[in-house]
Amino acid sequence: MQEIHCAIITIGDELLIGQTIDTNSAWMARQLNDIGILVKRRVAVGDHKASILRALDEEKQYAEVILITGGLGPTADDITKPLLCDYFGGQLVQNDQVMEMVKAHFTRRNRPMPDSNLLQAMVPNVCEVLYNEFGTAPGMLFREGKKIFVSMPGVPLEMQYIMKTYVLPLLQKNFDTPNIIHRTLITSGEGESAVSARLNHFESTLPDAIKLAYLPSLNMVKLRLTGIDIANKTVDDCFHQLKETLSDIIVADEDIEFEEAIGKLLIAEGKTVSTAESCTGGLFASRICSVSGASNYFKGGIVSYSEWSKIKHLNVAAQTIKDFTAVSQQTAEEMAIHCREKFETDFAVAITGYIEKGDHENEVWIALSSAKKTIAKKIIVPYERKKNAELASNTAFNLLRVFILEHHA
Amino acid sequence: MQEIHCAIITIGDELLIGQTIDTNSAWMARQLNDIGILVKRRVAVGDHKASILRALDEEKQYAEVILITGGLGPTADDITKPLLCDYFGGQLVQNDQVMEMVKAHFTRRNRPMPDSNLLQAMVPNVCEVLYNEFGTAPGMLFREGKKIFVSMPGVPLEMQYIMKTYVLPLLQKNFDTPNIIHRTLITSGEGESAVSARLNHFESTLPDAIKLAYLPSLNMVKLRLTGIDIANKTVDDCFHQLKETLSDIIVADEDIEFEEAIGKLLIAEGKTVSTAESCTGGLFASRICSVSGASNYFKGGIVSYSEWSKIKHLNVAAQTIKDFTAVSQQTAEEMAIHCREKFETDFAVAITGYIEKGDHENEVWIALSSAKKTIAKKIIVPYERKKNAELASNTAFNLLRVFILEHHA
Repeated sequence: MQEIHCAIITIGDELLIGQTIDTNSAWMARQLNDIGILVKRRVAVGDHKASILRALDEEKQYAEVILITGGLGPTADDITKPLLCDYFGGQLVQNDQVMEMVKAHFTRRNRPMPDSNLLQAMVPNVCEVLYNEFGTAPGMLFREGKKIFVSMPGVPLEMQYIMKTYVLPLLQKNFDTPNIIHRTLITSGEGESAVSARLNHFESTLPDAIKLAYLPSLNMVKLRLTGIDIANKTVDDCFHQLKETLSDIIVADEDIEFEEAIGKLLIAEGKTVSTAESCTGGLFASRICSVSGASNYFKGGIVSYSEWSKIKHLNVAAQTIKDFTAVSQQTAEEMAIHCREKFETDFAVAITGYIEKGDHENEVWIALSSAKKTIAKKIIVPYERKKNAELASNTAFNLLRVFILEHHA
Repeated sequence: MQEIHCAIITIGDELLIGQTIDTNSAWMARQLNDIGILVKRRVAVGDHKASILRALDEEKQYAEVILITGGLGPTADDITKPLLCDYFGGQLVQNDQVMEMVKAHFTRRNRPMPDSNLLQAMVPNVCEVLYNEFGTAPGMLFREGKKIFVSMPGVPLEMQYIMKTYVLPLLQKNFDTPNIIHRTLITSGEGESAVSARLNHFESTLPDAIKLAYLPSLNMVKLRLTGIDIANKTVDDCFHQLKETLSDIIVADEDIEFEEAIGKLLIAEGKTVSTAESCTGGLFASRICSVSGASNYFKGGIVSYSEWSKIKHLNVAAQTIKDFTAVSQQTAEEMAIHCREKFETDFAVAITGYIEKGDHENEVWIALSSAKKTIAKKIIVPYERKKNAELASNTAFNLLRVFILEHHA
């Protein structure tokens, strides 16, 4: 077993002027970690020959695996491919399979292919071509002694496809990497420090080869156990103990999104849900629908983005809004009740609030309704608009989770 | 005038295991660009002595300004401060002003101060202390010849405060920096290579001091002109020419989101819109609502996630669905027409389609309706579920843009 070090080089001026936030590196790091390869450095350079060459020269001194993203589009500012071809002493030759794929790419989209795309089919004769199902720029794998260099497009979907299809399997075959086991528990309803306080004893009993990491986000704390070269059963036992300790706040015992966990719960209970949203504007519904198979439990929703629409489309009494305002327990509850009736679902969730940062803290009311009862809860959202909408959605998911479980009995 | 190069070093294991997405670097790069300092490299390393030293040694060879974030917290894994102190040949001494600030930080929050925070007041005697209003770790400025090194905490709010209060003013005073001008054009409806083909002539006439960059995303290409030490008017003239060349596909002539551009257009035209969504599940509506002031032009929407709901809540004729299916021009058009009537808006957008990757490519119908006419367009969405929803939304935004402009005449 050897410790394998990886360096990630991202190429593109857009990274250096701050126009693009690099999400690729984090995704790649997580995937590499899962197979026991450690990312030691990440370097971002511009579309500039000397900078790219310097990065290649420097990173290969310390890393066995050098992953490169970006700089592969068909336009004139992309200089990476000819540079890599030179660097590894090859020549650009036409690859017929890539040519077919590029042509098919445009045929499928019913678009004429600009000539510049023919260049995509020119690949160095010293690389293994990694065919790209989702775009026109192929990935390229070069070897120098035992070191592996992979160049991939910077488009996340294309990079992810090439990583999953070619790079990760190849690295696992090529290197004797440590056995890494992850178990993820998702909790909601308590903050990081509250969860941490509950886990004091648990943490003190963990074996050295198992680490616990806290990954807090909006109304959610992910806990990840990582075992390095240790028996599966030992990790499972620790994970079981972790679940027992936090049983009341568990959303899922696997690394899935909140909306997926709620989907599984609704399917398990055989129940349906509908949504009535004001300030979140459809975000909550769209997250429910982002899960494959959501049509089994989601019937639909209303985005009532005005008082008039709350009255007309959700039958909220005009008097309720007049007496209590559109952001109130009463309005939220009426929205939920009438939404449930309108969509004929077992549960309905309503969200109404102020999420734009003003002079004081903003409040959001979240209501839940079933045939048995209707409840509402107020939360304070302290961030900017988009983040507040995320926080309100996450909170609604957790309230819905608890509400469904209460109805299970 | 000299060209000033900056390197950004970010320190922290969380960056290398993919736990944190680095948003600091992009923010810093934008600020530095605005004052004419070019970020040439960004390097991320772990909380590991040899890695940090290597980064310092390497980056100072090429850059005049080295900005370092992260690694300054009170916990045991933060090794950056003593390391920098050694690197610049100093000793840690207590700074009374920092001590007062750290104590005040806890007093304000009504919390007891853990002893580990006393360490924050120990600073190298070879640095200028950059006092941190928002946290406990001070920034530190070191000089080596004409080179400037600044170490800042990784918490975005704290880093931003130190950058704005100390670093940016100091760099402007210290260096005679070039004048950098950016102009951004957002286009939609044609792919990167098609746009590039239309700009062949334009690119060939660009002065050397102006660069054009392509930033493609889903049904959108951003074009960025960057002028370095060239008259404002020359950049403006080039930008004007760029706009003339692409006039039919321009979404915005500034760097904003699609939903913002549509919002501005609706406000300018004094029109309102509503939405009827099936496969996008509320995503389109939520993006409209993510813009501050959306209530001026968005009245609401329906998420009709089942045939039943399309019939019941959007008055689509059952016979239409029977004859043409729920994913058809006819259904999309009926959804749009009845949505517009229901919400009493000038325009309505309907989206219905298959976005889950199946055996063959998936189609989405997008319909637009006004009192004058109703049209629909089919697109093919080739990605996975979430990305297809994004693509359908972006396409709907562009179709709506063109539809609104047609009604302007």
